Amino acid sequence: DEIRGLAREVVEKEIEKHAADGLGSVDYAVASGGARVLSHSEPLGGFGNAGSWLNVGNKGVHSKAVKMLSPSFGEPGECFPLAGSNGFVVIQLKTAIVPEAITLEHVSESVAFDRSSAPKNCRVSGWLQGKQGLEIDTVDREEILLTDFVYDLKKSNAQTFNVLDEARSSVINTIRFDLISNHGNSLYTCIYRLRVHGHVPKSVPVIPADS
Amino acid sequence: DEIRGLAREVVEKEIEKHAADGLGSVDYAVASGGARVLSHSEPLGGFGNAGSWLNVGNKGVHSKAVKMLSPSFGEPGECFPLAGSNGFVVIQLKTAIVPEAITLEHVSESVAFDRSSAPKNCRVSGWLQGKQGLEIDTVDREEILLTDFVYDLKKSNAQTFNVLDEARSSVINTIRFDLISNHGNSLYTCIYRLRVHGHVPKSVPVIPADS
Amino acid sequence: DEIRGLAREVVEKEIEKHAADGLGSVDYAVASGGARVLSHSEPLGGFGNAGSWLNVGNKGVHSKAVKMLSPSFGEPGECFPLAGSNGFVVIQLKTAIVPEAITLEHVSESVAFDRSSAPKNCRVSGWLQGKQGLEIDTVDREEILLTDFVYDLKKSNAQTFNVLDEARSSVINTIRFDLISNHGNSLYTCIYRLRVHGHVPKSVPVIPADS
Ligand SMILES: [K+]
Ligand SMILES: [K+]
Ligand SMILES: [K+]
Repeated sequence: DEIRGLAREVVEKEIEKHAADGLGSVDYAVASGGARVLSHSEPLGGFGNAGSWLNVGNKGVHSKAVKMLSPSFGEPGECFPLAGSNGFVVIQLKTAIVPEAITLEHVSESVAFDRSSAPKNCRVSGWLQGKQGLEIDTVDREEILLTDFVYDLKKSNAQTFNVLDEARSSVINTIRFDLISNHGNSLYTCIYRLRVHGHVPKSVPVIPADS
Repeated sequence: DEIRGLAREVVEKEIEKHAADGLGSVDYAVASGGARVLSHSEPLGGFGNAGSWLNVGNKGVHSKAVKMLSPSFGEPGECFPLAGSNGFVVIQLKTAIVPEAITLEHVSESVAFDRSSAPKNCRVSGWLQGKQGLEIDTVDREEILLTDFVYDLKKSNAQTFNVLDEARSSVINTIRFDLISNHGNSLYTCIYRLRVHGHVPKSVPVIPADS
Repeated sequence: DEIRGLAREVVEKEIEKHAADGLGSVDYAVASGGARVLSHSEPLGGFGNAGSWLNVGNKGVHSKAVKMLSPSFGEPGECFPLAGSNGFVVIQLKTAIVPEAITLEHVSESVAFDRSSAPKNCRVSGWLQGKQGLEIDTVDREEILLTDFVYDLKKSNAQTFNVLDEARSSVINTIRFDLISNHGNSLYTCIYRLRVHGHVPKSVPVIPADS
């Protein structure tokens, strides 16, 4: 009975974490919190052919792009597929933060049809963008490398990487995810979910939003 | 090995409960079961301005209202935001029931950006409405107080409150959720999910629906 | 502490399985992987009446049919309801596979309003269809019985049935689910989810898709 009680205590804590978006950690890149994809490299299916124009919105952002800023619930296919084995995605965060860590998630090995489409070598950089990110101003921004990492197919499907020490005092509201290589698929790369963890700096006023 | 077996037994039971809509308890207010919002106070963004008219349906019910009758999966933003720190929502249940308990759920603290928008003092009342709730008949209905409660930010994110003893023999098919105050946000209050537990009275015929 | 460590180990493994689509087993019938319903018997509400024509697509497939190829998250109503207590559904799998097992899932007892609408006696057969299943060719196909089973309301809500030994060397890309009876509801039967497990034969090339 004592052991049962102890086990129940451990279980409840772990399920609580699982139920809290899997990691129990605030994600400033979650779409439901107000983050969004600003631009990206060519998606699987292309930008311009007849079959896909319906999927591309006003600013050239694919309708599936939001999937990489949304929870996955264990099923395959709920990703944003980029064409080829390298590319990029630029994301406007919910608000300006001091970055602490990045989580990249792929579908679990046990339910995946094929994992060659998983990202491998990745790089994330960030900057503070003036007008709430509505236009990408490449002139006077200072881009900071947040982290360089390898997504490992042998580890758990959500992998968290700490931000480099030298970037720990920066304030950013926009990031760029660079896909350098994938796990062998030459046609496309699936991005299931990218999360950005950190904290709101004390001096910056927070604009209220849904939640 | 014995301990491992015992632990597995406890885990399986807890995960089963978690997988059964988190609580393992029938919810007569879940939208997928046929319940719906009939009316509500002013939503965040307003009833009538240019930006939101697309979101308001025929009967003045906001498109986001259904979120408070739908499961949340641990991410922030999946709520129905009412303007201000007080307001109300009227809900038609799936069917007439004898009410037993009310559950109010907010997003988990570990993933929330800000919890000042959580409801605090709340009241739920109920009544039996003639024509399956298509019109709100305020004349000859008998409204019963089901429960008065405080949503506590320090407790687990889904909090269940028993219906008052004197309401335990009533039969209702409609409830009114009154938001009296929130946890400090003056602009809006997020309602993540409201559930209504109870049982179908033996003498009332159940109209079959999807499930 | 040792017991706590052991419990945590068991919990993490079980939660990982739970998070991996509940079973941690590849499903070649999941809609997000590319599978789809090709045809079915009369749905609840009918094929042809005024209220439902909006729900029936080009090829006579109901808009709710996809629900039986999609994850359920513990809430009632997320099913494909067939009219009556018997019927059928034909499903094109993601790709040609050697079938190993079939899983039928209904809503958990603890959150269901009524379980008389659950399937009871079922049969699943399969075949290899020429033109990627776009047309149902009933002439020269060889239909193989995969399994005959009874869905038991007393067991866990996702029940897995092994494919018959004699069908274990077949290659199929299409299945037919035959509903022979349900648990007592004369009006309709709810199919929450059907999964098809197996492996891709070594000689057949895999067409890449999202994942
Ligand atoms: K996703
Ligand atoms: K919700
Ligand atoms: K389903």
